[in-house]
Amino acid sequence: MAFSSDSGEGFLIQDPKLANSGRVKIDWVSRWMTVLNGLRDQFSDHSVFAGKRIAISIHLEAKTAYLAQIVKDLGADVWITSSNPHSTKDDVCAALAERGIHVFARKGAETGEYEKFVEKIVSCKPHALIDDGGDTTEYLHQHPEFAEELKGVCEETTSGVARLKQRDAENSLLFPAIAINDAQSKYLFDNRYGTGESTWSAITQLTNVTVAGKTVVCVGFGWVGRGVAMRAAGHGAEVIVTEIDPWKAWEARMEGFRVMPMHEAAPLGDFFITNTGEENVIRVEHMREMKDRAFLANAGHFGYEIDVPGLKKESKSVRCVRDDIEEYLLANGKRLYLLAQGNIINISGGLGHPIEIMDLSFSLQLASVHFILSTDGLENRLYRVPKAIDERVVRTKMQQDGIAIDEDLRNGG
Amino acid sequence: MAFSSDSGEGFLIQDPKLANSGRVKIDWVSRWMTVLNGLRDQFSDHSVFAGKRIAISIHLEAKTAYLAQIVKDLGADVWITSSNPHSTKDDVCAALAERGIHVFARKGAETGEYEKFVEKIVSCKPHALIDDGGDTTEYLHQHPEFAEELKGVCEETTSGVARLKQRDAENSLLFPAIAINDAQSKYLFDNRYGTGESTWSAITQLTNVTVAGKTVVCVGFGWVGRGVAMRAAGHGAEVIVTEIDPWKAWEARMEGFRVMPMHEAAPLGDFFITNTGEENVIRVEHMREMKDRAFLANAGHFGYEIDVPGLKKESKSVRCVRDDIEEYLLANGKRLYLLAQGNIINISGGLGHPIEIMDLSFSLQLASVHFILSTDGLENRLYRVPKAIDERVVRTKMQQDGIAIDEDLRNGG
Amino acid sequence: MAFSSDSGEGFLIQDPKLANSGRVKIDWVSRWMTVLNGLRDQFSDHSVFAGKRIAISIHLEAKTAYLAQIVKDLGADVWITSSNPHSTKDDVCAALAERGIHVFARKGAETGEYEKFVEKIVSCKPHALIDDGGDTTEYLHQHPEFAEELKGVCEETTSGVARLKQRDAENSLLFPAIAINDAQSKYLFDNRYGTGESTWSAITQLTNVTVAGKTVVCVGFGWVGRGVAMRAAGHGAEVIVTEIDPWKAWEARMEGFRVMPMHEAAPLGDFFITNTGEENVIRVEHMREMKDRAFLANAGHFGYEIDVPGLKKESKSVRCVRDDIEEYLLANGKRLYLLAQGNIINISGGLGHPIEIMDLSFSLQLASVHFILSTDGLENRLYRVPKAIDERVVRTKMQQDGIAIDEDLRNGG
Amino acid sequence: MAFSSDSGEGFLIQDPKLANSGRVKIDWVSRWMTVLNGLRDQFSDHSVFAGKRIAISIHLEAKTAYLAQIVKDLGADVWITSSNPHSTKDDVCAALAERGIHVFARKGAETGEYEKFVEKIVSCKPHALIDDGGDTTEYLHQHPEFAEELKGVCEETTSGVARLKQRDAENSLLFPAIAINDAQSKYLFDNRYGTGESTWSAITQLTNVTVAGKTVVCVGFGWVGRGVAMRAAGHGAEVIVTEIDPWKAWEARMEGFRVMPMHEAAPLGDFFITNTGEENVIRVEHMREMKDRAFLANAGHFGYEIDVPGLKKESKSVRCVRDDIEEYLLANGKRLYLLAQGNIINISGGLGHPIEIMDLSFSLQLASVHFILSTDGLENRLYRVPKAIDERVVRTKMQQDGIAIDEDLRNGG
Repeated sequence: MAFSSDSGEGFLIQDPKLANSGRVKIDWVSRWMTVLNGLRDQFSDHSVFAGKRIAISIHLEAKTAYLAQIVKDLGADVWITSSNPHSTKDDVCAALAERGIHVFARKGAETGEYEKFVEKIVSCKPHALIDDGGDTTEYLHQHPEFAEELKGVCEETTSGVARLKQRDAENSLLFPAIAINDAQSKYLFDNRYGTGESTWSAITQLTNVTVAGKTVVCVGFGWVGRGVAMRAAGHGAEVIVTEIDPWKAWEARMEGFRVMPMHEAAPLGDFFITNTGEENVIRVEHMREMKDRAFLANAGHFGYEIDVPGLKKESKSVRCVRDDIEEYLLANGKRLYLLAQGNIINISGGLGHPIEIMDLSFSLQLASVHFILSTDGLENRLYRVPKAIDERVVRTKMQQDGIAIDEDLRNGG
Repeated sequence: MAFSSDSGEGFLIQDPKLANSGRVKIDWVSRWMTVLNGLRDQFSDHSVFAGKRIAISIHLEAKTAYLAQIVKDLGADVWITSSNPHSTKDDVCAALAERGIHVFARKGAETGEYEKFVEKIVSCKPHALIDDGGDTTEYLHQHPEFAEELKGVCEETTSGVARLKQRDAENSLLFPAIAINDAQSKYLFDNRYGTGESTWSAITQLTNVTVAGKTVVCVGFGWVGRGVAMRAAGHGAEVIVTEIDPWKAWEARMEGFRVMPMHEAAPLGDFFITNTGEENVIRVEHMREMKDRAFLANAGHFGYEIDVPGLKKESKSVRCVRDDIEEYLLANGKRLYLLAQGNIINISGGLGHPIEIMDLSFSLQLASVHFILSTDGLENRLYRVPKAIDERVVRTKMQQDGIAIDEDLRNGG
Repeated sequence: MAFSSDSGEGFLIQDPKLANSGRVKIDWVSRWMTVLNGLRDQFSDHSVFAGKRIAISIHLEAKTAYLAQIVKDLGADVWITSSNPHSTKDDVCAALAERGIHVFARKGAETGEYEKFVEKIVSCKPHALIDDGGDTTEYLHQHPEFAEELKGVCEETTSGVARLKQRDAENSLLFPAIAINDAQSKYLFDNRYGTGESTWSAITQLTNVTVAGKTVVCVGFGWVGRGVAMRAAGHGAEVIVTEIDPWKAWEARMEGFRVMPMHEAAPLGDFFITNTGEENVIRVEHMREMKDRAFLANAGHFGYEIDVPGLKKESKSVRCVRDDIEEYLLANGKRLYLLAQGNIINISGGLGHPIEIMDLSFSLQLASVHFILSTDGLENRLYRVPKAIDERVVRTKMQQDGIAIDEDLRNGG
Repeated sequence: MAFSSDSGEGFLIQDPKLANSGRVKIDWVSRWMTVLNGLRDQFSDHSVFAGKRIAISIHLEAKTAYLAQIVKDLGADVWITSSNPHSTKDDVCAALAERGIHVFARKGAETGEYEKFVEKIVSCKPHALIDDGGDTTEYLHQHPEFAEELKGVCEETTSGVARLKQRDAENSLLFPAIAINDAQSKYLFDNRYGTGESTWSAITQLTNVTVAGKTVVCVGFGWVGRGVAMRAAGHGAEVIVTEIDPWKAWEARMEGFRVMPMHEAAPLGDFFITNTGEENVIRVEHMREMKDRAFLANAGHFGYEIDVPGLKKESKSVRCVRDDIEEYLLANGKRLYLLAQGNIINISGGLGHPIEIMDLSFSLQLASVHFILSTDGLENRLYRVPKAIDERVVRTKMQQDGIAIDEDLRNGG
């Protein structure tokens, strides 16, 4: 295995020689993460981070790497792994290791390896944890000896926050937690505008086919589905929405989209994009009805929205016909094209969220970790991001973009 | 005063001879209030309404009249006045009186008269009240002798619900209440799609000027502001949004709109539309900076968003130059055109919400009154619309429009 | 017959007492016809119009009236009738007569009367004619004795220009003519942006139903159809386009619209708008397939695009259910709503083009008449609007709106 | 030089071992060039191409390669080079050579080499030529000995057609030519929908920054500019248009875009996209006013729209910060990011037109070459694509996409 570590096991990565390529990528995103840069400058005056150990478990690509690098620059000791081995960029890991960050990750790591990585990063007994999905948080609950110094956890995603909410309801949290996902500066923007845009950027780049004049079936009309539908329409596509929630369905209709059940949409779509967070929303019964050469892609977090195992069974053959495009030849003779193996298309098949979208999310993360480290007496409960932080993030972004808004003159302003 | 009543004072209206015109208008809307018609058919099997006295206080035009008429058709005795004398249509009142409904209303009634009307309709000691804004509800709290038989109140608006929430918090409600406004079938649709569309329909009809190629300043980006901005863009206008809330401002920007403070927008706009619910959001300091021939209109519920008294003081002359258009000649020589005197433009200067939008709201009202009348043991609290009602309304609408959606297969479906 | 004329037969109108209402309307449009006002100021220095007789035959409403009034103000003697008796506004005629203009028109004039009006206005032996549709031009060809002083004709419409092109090809023109319709400042704007906007303004005002969430079938995707489709989408409708031209059909598809033959669209539409210039594009075979309560409207110039006689035959009953809405009860039990009797909806059922759109067209007219009167030696041919005029009109409009553009730096600028 | 040829000099390419990668790319596009596939099937019945020599000079990437391959499959002997060495894909060339096509091309070939390639492909004395830009056509005029067997030329581009029009006007054409570019199935679609979509796909992929909420300056509002502006708006950007043509400027305004001169737009834009076909439309005087971190890209055919030499002179340093992104540090301290060195962004920085767009263009090419080879007696003039061909292409495309349209019933249908 071409796997490298320094002598002291301070990191475990694929190949240190990739550092240069990773560094270029991190440098590029650093130019556009301007809110984060502003926080770094502000926090560099104080010494909240100095000497602290911060664990991070998150998709390991250039934008995340830049967050880790800033935490390191603020004086902390950073231990990082990927929350999903499929999205790991080995060159970015190499660049982080070069900077003295304790990276434990490689693209395509298998389950056992991934678990060891998680073990590794918590072995430092972190003062704070930045988590994505909640696996590392869960690990700490099962191995509380690593959480002895832990002042709190910041959770990035809907699914991770859901797990925290359950623990909070059961009073079983062992340390304070902050629901980054639920901050307005995050949930109002990342799925709708981030996923919406990057999903289509990935699809057009992977396929080189037109979106204009095509029929796009958006499965689900939550935040992600709205973004994907809005940008499909912006590309000149006809949009069909499927939903199980009647109010979302009626909103989609009032936006001018066609609304119908999946089995009616199946024979009409050129592109099918899942955005539901639920399992098997596109099933073999639908695939059989699809047009020859329809595309299947998933914009949701988990790779189980399209029934890929079912698709495989239904197919006479499968072959890769272009990067991240597999051609499934169905028993009925039609070809379906699955993008990025059904994994989250914008990250697995593209560049992930646009940089500025992650700038907002990671600024919430950095300011929330700062809040945790500098605040005593937090209970072992799930907290919202403090409103002052949430507001500072969005206001800083607007200010940097040269956008002023009115003052609230009520109640003496 | 050309004011008519029957001998027994069963009604008080402007002119019974207008009934024909009113009947035509009500007949027209009856064709498009199909969800309401469905409920009527369903409730006609039972006898929940028979012999009950229902008081209604709501804008008195064709759509409302049709609700009143249905309540009457279901067997109830209906006592109705207008929640706002400016919006009263005298021909519609005449048509209702002709049908045997106890109408007490006339266009332009003065404050004292309006109060008497309220007194009149509660004098029947109603079993249920449909209210809009909360004035009649308040009256009943101050004269509880009229509420002795009252099983509950259904409140239509945000502002009326706000008053109820305060009473609920103080435990001072004297009867059960239902917040119609907060049902998903209402708030997700009426302001965005109803006000958005009808505001522009009113403006184009009043003015006959182009919207395409103009600059529209939307003051506020809540539900109403979104609708107004979305439809302005749909007309081919350039849209500028002003806000005090940073997240709403940033959402507006991510939709592609320009965002700036009011004093920067003032010299740029061709149309200024207020959508905030707040007082004096367009002030004389802004008006002085506006272009010659700019239009001012208000899409919010109350007529105080534009500082009309200030505008009058600043003006050398005011004259009506076309129906519902006043020309203010400012001291600086520029002309500003105020639409509908600054009152809510879609109702005061146009036809109000499209019929189907009110069909959803009034179906919630009818089903909620039915719920109140047929449910014993409700506490004197503020209730949400029961989810079953909320869902039936939107599902019926979709079914009637021929739109099916997927079933929820989770948890055994 | 309540028909008035002065003693000297200087005008023939419905009722001079309506002048006040007409004057208010003309005053309003005068504020927004700013390019025309600029030309008036420029031409007032010269004496090209003084003492000239100008005949005008055009839809007689406020915007047209203002053009006539300006020609009069520049010193000419103006003789005017309507190009279509259905669109004549009697109050506007009265205001013109009051100003000393020779008006011969009344709403609903019958064919014989209309012909006499045409005779009347050419009886002055005009020096120039502003025509719309070409009937008066044709009359002059058949009665050349009235054209003895005629220096030229300016034709407004596509159909009138078509007749002139035929005469030009046959070398049978008896005087010079200018094709106003073919100027860029007209055809690029009036149908797409003018008809598109005013069609929907008229429909929403007539019906008070929602456009959002509805299915709109645009029959034809020429300039008018594009405008109507674009604004339907801007209102939140789903748009279906029908066409006979494959390239236009494919353009519609690339804009994201659904495209299909009329017989497939018939059962899907909530609104059907014809925009083809052709006869009977919606026929009884389609009407039978339509949904109950579908709306039929025509945005094209002529009232024959919908087969109204066929619809009548197919119907068990017809009745007017609201201004400009007729309910046809088909033999199959479904109701269809015909707007404005199938006549051009934006004029017959609404306010016509927005004022600023007509400002461009009528500025071309005024400058072209000025050109004709001040240019000797024009041949009896059909001319384009001189490019200098066409360009001055659009540049003046932009300048007045505060819009500057780059200079052409090629070839020394 | 790693340059390969077979022994008989039947081809000259970079590296035959790349054939596999090229074949995969060609196979992918073959699935989406369905109109072309239909023509191939139709022409395979006849023997028009058998034994003919066809020369092709066009951007040498997968879509073009597939056209060449089809011509070969129809029995012709194909000699091909690239019309622009920057766009050549060496793997695609290798795949063509492997198929027995005479390829003479390599990425980055210098001027002298490029000229030799042109010489090579005409040395076969072709029966027909497919040209792009007109260089090879010009060569044949200067070396008519190679045109002895030539039955005609089909020209792809606006600029190549311009050169042909000049020769046609001068009667100096030595052989028949067909203006592919001017067919409706091409010019109505490729620039607006093809360039519009692929430009933004390339930009988002190269940069990973958001387009939503940004200000995009479209320099020029012709077909390309419209497409780029439309899709920018569809991504949620604010769009500013600059123009020198007043009518195009006013159209842009009526679409809701801001319109202003370049020097006013310069400080406002986040992205500047040139779409004019003219030289130096973005100059140093504009660059100095731009915001720090603005992007510059060109969507026009030629790389001279942005004054790159001027930019270099004005800069203190230049460095490549990511693939196809150069950072220019201006004397004033601001950074500008030039994409794809100012070359046509969708091809040089991305995948070029979407496949289906090229399917239409290349179907016109194939059918027109077939027409030339099978038609005797063509004069040495410039011809339009026969309407029957133009119409068959668009109708076939619609039919394959399952879209039917109405028949033209006029004149007996």
